[in-house]
Amino acid sequence: MLSVAVPSFSEQPVPNLMPVPTSLQLGTGRMVIDASFSVGIKGYSDSRLERSVTLFLTNLRRETAMPPLLMKLTEASQAKFVVEAGGANQVVQELGEDESYRLAITASAAKLSAATGLGVMRGFATFLQLVETTPEGFAVPALIIEDHPRFPWRGLMVDVSRHFIPLDVLRRNLDGMAALKLNVFHWHLSDNQGFRVESKKFPKLAEMGSDGLYYTQDQVRELIAYAAERGIRVVPEFDMPGHSTAWFVGYPELASAPGPYQIERKWGIFDPAMDPAEEGTYRFLDKFIGEMAGLFPDRYFHIGGDEVNGKQWDANPKIQAFMRAHGLKTNQDLQAYFNQRTEKILSKRGKIMVGWDEILRPTLPKDIVVQSWRGQESLAQAAKMGFRGLLSYAYYLDLMHPAAYHYAVDPMSDGAANLSPDQAKLILGGEACMWSEYVSPENVDSRIWPRMAAIAERLWSAPSVVDVDSMYRRLEVTSRWLDWFGLTHNSGYTPMLRRIAGSDQISPLKTLADVLEPVKDYTREETAPVEPTSLLPLDRLIDAARPESATGREFGVMVDTMLAGHASAQTKEQVRAMLSLWRDNQSSLQPLEGQSFLLQEVIPASENLTRVAAAGLEALDYLDRGARPAEGWKSQTAALLEDGGKQRAQLLLVIVPSIEKLVEAAAQGSTAALSK
Amino acid sequence: MLSVAVPSFSEQPVPNLMPVPTSLQLGTGRMVIDASFSVGIKGYSDSRLERSVTLFLTNLRRETAMPPLLMKLTEASQAKFVVEAGGANQVVQELGEDESYRLAITASAAKLSAATGLGVMRGFATFLQLVETTPEGFAVPALIIEDHPRFPWRGLMVDVSRHFIPLDVLRRNLDGMAALKLNVFHWHLSDNQGFRVESKKFPKLAEMGSDGLYYTQDQVRELIAYAAERGIRVVPEFDMPGHSTAWFVGYPELASAPGPYQIERKWGIFDPAMDPAEEGTYRFLDKFIGEMAGLFPDRYFHIGGDEVNGKQWDANPKIQAFMRAHGLKTNQDLQAYFNQRTEKILSKRGKIMVGWDEILRPTLPKDIVVQSWRGQESLAQAAKMGFRGLLSYAYYLDLMHPAAYHYAVDPMSDGAANLSPDQAKLILGGEACMWSEYVSPENVDSRIWPRMAAIAERLWSAPSVVDVDSMYRRLEVTSRWLDWFGLTHNSGYTPMLRRIAGSDQISPLKTLADVLEPVKDYTREETAPVEPTSLLPLDRLIDAARPESATGREFGVMVDTMLAGHASAQTKEQVRAMLSLWRDNQSSLQPLEGQSFLLQEVIPASENLTRVAAAGLEALDYLDRGARPAEGWKSQTAALLEDGGKQRAQLLLVIVPSIEKLVEAAAQGSTAALSK
Repeated sequence: MLSVAVPSFSEQPVPNLMPVPTSLQLGTGRMVIDASFSVGIKGYSDSRLERSVTLFLTNLRRETAMPPLLMKLTEASQAKFVVEAGGANQVVQELGEDESYRLAITASAAKLSAATGLGVMRGFATFLQLVETTPEGFAVPALIIEDHPRFPWRGLMVDVSRHFIPLDVLRRNLDGMAALKLNVFHWHLSDNQGFRVESKKFPKLAEMGSDGLYYTQDQVRELIAYAAERGIRVVPEFDMPGHSTAWFVGYPELASAPGPYQIERKWGIFDPAMDPAEEGTYRFLDKFIGEMAGLFPDRYFHIGGDEVNGKQWDANPKIQAFMRAHGLKTNQDLQAYFNQRTEKILSKRGKIMVGWDEILRPTLPKDIVVQSWRGQESLAQAAKMGFRGLLSYAYYLDLMHPAAYHYAVDPMSDGAANLSPDQAKLILGGEACMWSEYVSPENVDSRIWPRMAAIAERLWSAPSVVDVDSMYRRLEVTSRWLDWFGLTHNSGYTPMLRRIAGSDQISPLKTLADVLEPVKDYTREETAPVEPTSLLPLDRLIDAARPESATGREFGVMVDTMLAGHASAQTKEQVRAMLSLWRDNQSSLQPLEGQSFLLQEVIPASENLTRVAAAGLEALDYLDRGARPAEGWKSQTAALLEDGGKQRAQLLLVIVPSIEKLVEAAAQGSTAALSK
Repeated sequence: MLSVAVPSFSEQPVPNLMPVPTSLQLGTGRMVIDASFSVGIKGYSDSRLERSVTLFLTNLRRETAMPPLLMKLTEASQAKFVVEAGGANQVVQELGEDESYRLAITASAAKLSAATGLGVMRGFATFLQLVETTPEGFAVPALIIEDHPRFPWRGLMVDVSRHFIPLDVLRRNLDGMAALKLNVFHWHLSDNQGFRVESKKFPKLAEMGSDGLYYTQDQVRELIAYAAERGIRVVPEFDMPGHSTAWFVGYPELASAPGPYQIERKWGIFDPAMDPAEEGTYRFLDKFIGEMAGLFPDRYFHIGGDEVNGKQWDANPKIQAFMRAHGLKTNQDLQAYFNQRTEKILSKRGKIMVGWDEILRPTLPKDIVVQSWRGQESLAQAAKMGFRGLLSYAYYLDLMHPAAYHYAVDPMSDGAANLSPDQAKLILGGEACMWSEYVSPENVDSRIWPRMAAIAERLWSAPSVVDVDSMYRRLEVTSRWLDWFGLTHNSGYTPMLRRIAGSDQISPLKTLADVLEPVKDYTREETAPVEPTSLLPLDRLIDAARPESATGREFGVMVDTMLAGHASAQTKEQVRAMLSLWRDNQSSLQPLEGQSFLLQEVIPASENLTRVAAAGLEALDYLDRGARPAEGWKSQTAALLEDGGKQRAQLLLVIVPSIEKLVEAAAQGSTAALSK
């Protein structure tokens, strides 16, 4: 066996696994998956383990087109792939259950061993990722993988309040999560813009607070069962005492100011907050949490707790009197009081409280979990106080950062780097967050995938796995692989471009869109042409454009190689061809402009591409000729590129930095690009 | 208003409707669909009509990305789109219910009027097809459409026995059917290879006859409700007395020869048949049909009745004695006896019998329906005997014919052309048939769509609507439009090619696959490299290649234009560019060959493309130079093309006929191609 040190995943034929496993030894040859393939369970078995095998075979059939009559669960003694679990996993999945597994594949057989059924699921995900089309048939390479997660909490939060996300969309995303070995689905179920779960005790919550867009309790149970079959815990979040306008539409008496209330249509932080000074609030929450504690079996229960602006509290004399009477000096103190009361309600039901940074107060019991959107420093602070934490800082998928940005953020780095071993153990992992101001069922997959896979790797793989080039190479393969799970991050792109173009002839629009990215962070709000609300359709190019442009990244790599003097003639030709295509693209797009209202805002972005690409071609010409450009060319071109880097239609042209490098090199009269 | 005579649909901006409506008058301007859009019901209303509006709005949102908070059902007085139905359609949809509608759109409002809720559904389908992206927003053109179907029975049969088709796949295909105004889903539920419905009275039918792949009765009810909401009747077929091996696995006593029986894995016609001489058979069918008559509410019940080879009957002395005793001279007489008995069981339950050609006997009651796979002559014969009929001849989607082939076949032509008006009325319409020897959930959509739309038009539109160019132009648009309904005929192509290539770099494979079509008729069986069975994966290029190559057709049109002397310089360049791409494609594909077992059989097809394209380029050169080719070139090239037209990997190279035309022209020293 050839031993391969992690993370040297750069050479073939090491498989493109994501997340990178703890250890991998490549063997010789491969095991063919054909009609004779079958799975057997050795030793411990139960119906859930059998169901895992069935799910695995269903996915394997998607990859191989094998008919359902083949590849069955059989006796272990006759099976090509033997699965051995030490025992059952918990019926209600718990934090920290053993997910380790060992997968050994030879040319003739495979064996998956794991302590629990959860490890089996993770091993199945790895097996599925190993399947390839080979000269001999579908096959997996001979190897031994030993693997376990670095962090026990690896999550994805989906906000279904700002935009409702239907169950079928959630299901396919749970499939994607399981494929990447994620294990917590954090369901952000209520916010100002919608309350999304049926409550039988307080029916007006969903009836009046959701526009009819909510999950019934049966549907919730179904989704939890679906997640459980994939080794994914479901942690519900009911955000309180702020972010709660939608509750007040049906129950205004919970609020700190008189109603009536309406479902919020805008984005941002709003004044309405629950009344912490009113005993009725706790009576309500006691009944409500009692009901939801029965519906959601997970031990952990998220109460949000973020972004209370305190305005309703400041303006309410009764609340002010309450604060004075209880010695609560600040609104933070008042919220801490609220949290303590809520925590008692939760712990009475056997639930452990989770909340965002703001809940952190030494007075809370030490078993609560703090989810940090502020950073590792805030996690470290919590750990030093003895609290467990989750990192979500820098894992916000809605902010449209590249995968490398997320990948670079380690929960244990920066502020958390110097924790004692005991403190470090309190950091449970992290969660990516899909806030949904700008996602719809149509484009949510493309906002989550494939970038989520980079975060999944950060939370599963060893901290030494940091090679960005390797990550991107595997991310591209992983992105295509996820197509088999029904995710639409790839397939949804073309139909959206067709809608925008008002035509099936989308080639020039696609050429443009392929090098555009939505503006980052909160710029979309800040630069919005009209105030964004939940009533606006998400039909613009910014809604179709991918958060990260693969074309732009590949172009950047080629330019860097060229300027480092390492580019082949073919690469140089390709750079020139791409620039020419881009320069001329507007002449192809222009005729479409008149036919679609959605193209009109796009034209300036297209004209910008023409200008920037033309500047790149000029630079290339200078470099090719080894000639110094005329006086003033550099400053003129730099000004053009500075302007070219600005957003148009809230989209950024991602090739600008590479063109700037070309221009800089040309201005210096560099001839490096010509060498080789 | 500008009146446009049907079928002159060739000029813009006449909308690309399919099927072509009975009459259409284009108006001026368009109605914008924006946040203010709403639908109101005027006059008669019921919950089903409201549900139709909801479904319509769901589909409209898919097209426009409009959020669910907008575009509601409102009061008719405030609605932009008013819907007025004369009354309810039947709760259980009946053959011949009024489906006509009138859709009037102005720049400011729209009105849909129909006699029944069914007409409303058809009008909604038209409206959805009219939506376009315009400079002012999403919009529908001002117009008046008056429309009604030519035939009352417009169906699609799907065989779920030879390959099981899951419910989600059926649901999306029902969406596609409704979009094309089809109104009968004929569910071929049992055959030698599988019995697909749960029977509570005879549980072993599905338990032992389906490999576990069957629909529960709850699922059947759900699918029927889903179809009903879309104005589609569900006609079940239980094929008997032949095509029934799967029944006998659990109930061998029904057969005409002793068991045991196993589920058939091969394709073809087999010996097992029910025992018509045994009273137990009829007792069984009485109970079974009683149960299924309750499950399937449609008035019509299909008993198959096709392809009994009679061998089991011939070999059974008891059956022979029975025939003698009852004066039944032939096996056809015996089957007629069986049909009569079965028909009595059906009519006792209020059901009308439908069967394939073979059931036709004057002794059956006149209300039965004959479904003809034999042709219009057979339909006419039935009509002359007073029986109603359906055409399926030439509408077999599994035989891989082009849309134009199906489009050219009119139920009332050929043998049926000379019927009296009363006889003609007996021809109810037709059904396309999706026999499933070679379809899986993955590729079934691409075998049905878009060609099905041409058949849908044949059955809905006036017989004068026969312009093939117009059909193809609208078919392409319709194919993309169907993407909004979740059909995978377009999106599924790339993932299948990736699997075959064993790579994400599929560009050369796609170039090749785009000009290949599966062999036609029953050639796939006849030329199969290994005996085809239900155990073989459908993972080859023949399973991914489209039944009809759009690229091939477009190339053919360009060559014809060129040889007629009407081609622009651009067209000529394009023809040359395509031929060059094809000639050089094998050099790009070759490096992939070694990495995939699925590519190995494809390489000869790729080499053939190189040779044929090179011959085309030679011909083009002669034509360009106006030079006569050397002696022997024509015969040599003709031989090459004759060979090039033969199947490779069971795939046909569709450009061969066009290249033959080029070669012929070159050999004649024609200069027509140079003119203009």
